[in-house]
Amino acid sequence: MNFLDVILSRRSIRKYKKDKIPETHIKSILEAAMNAPSRKNERPWHFVIINNRKILDKIPLFHLNSRMLYEAPMAILVAGDLTVTRDIFIAIDCSASTENILLAAHSLGLGACWLGIYPDEDRMKGIKELLNLPESVLPISLISIGYPDEGKPQINRFEQNRIHYNGW
Amino acid sequence: MNFLDVILSRRSIRKYKKDKIPETHIKSILEAAMNAPSRKNERPWHFVIINNRKILDKIPLFHLNSRMLYEAPMAILVAGDLTVTRDIFIAIDCSASTENILLAAHSLGLGACWLGIYPDEDRMKGIKELLNLPESVLPISLISIGYPDEGKPQINRFEQNRIHYNGW
Repeated sequence: MNFLDVILSRRSIRKYKKDKIPETHIKSILEAAMNAPSRKNERPWHFVIINNRKILDKIPLFHLNSRMLYEAPMAILVAGDLTVTRDIFIAIDCSASTENILLAAHSLGLGACWLGIYPDEDRMKGIKELLNLPESVLPISLISIGYPDEGKPQINRFEQNRIHYNGW
Repeated sequence: MNFLDVILSRRSIRKYKKDKIPETHIKSILEAAMNAPSRKNERPWHFVIINNRKILDKIPLFHLNSRMLYEAPMAILVAGDLTVTRDIFIAIDCSASTENILLAAHSLGLGACWLGIYPDEDRMKGIKELLNLPESVLPISLISIGYPDEGKPQINRFEQNRIHYNGW
């Protein structure tokens, strides 16, 4: 599959097999995450690997859209350090990093789904307490990851009417 | 080059040859941009292709970090529709889309650089006036694109100390 086909065939995958993710794949995914661009190359990001079943099962209690975590073998929290930069730049940089995680997972044959945390107060509070995050760490997104147990066809969401030339 | 190598070898490229970008490449880049994930699949994004020399040359007047645009054959503005969702979700979705643009450009042998617009008031005002954006359209990022006229070595920004397991 060429590079652009990986981008075009990525879909949100919410059903997973029970198989664990090999450590080498996790390392590759985190390499992709940390090689995203960031403002002034500040790289404010941190990553929490969550693969403890008891912890995963507590997340849907405060994040109602995250029920796929009951089946997912792991998730990655992307968070940012407020001592490095302010909230909006953390959100932007961590979103580019999150996209790299999704793409890297898909390229390795894994399925993943982006679960928003920031700026939802309940989700931020829930994840901060559950993972014991320092006050200066801002949780941005959570990505569930596993071997896919559903197939989804490729959809091309290209729309000509979203394109403008040299002005509106 | 395999998929992960494309992610790992992407660098910010700020020097460009004068060659124009083929239309087929621009289409591929925009396909990648529009196939990014977005919150609730809302896809709030719009894209303004800027390849008019007079317009490109006006951007560094209000965006001091954008002087590479004097040489770049084109740039793409990524903006979001405030009638679809609010500013922070536009910033997050457009950042994932911007990362796809950077990766797609690199995979096609092009060089690109992410220039932040949101939330800088001067840059937002400047770009809105220059491109005649409607009041409801929020400019997020600008990407300069061209055939690279500089080579940059691959740097692996992986750092083990950014990784945490099941808590902080």
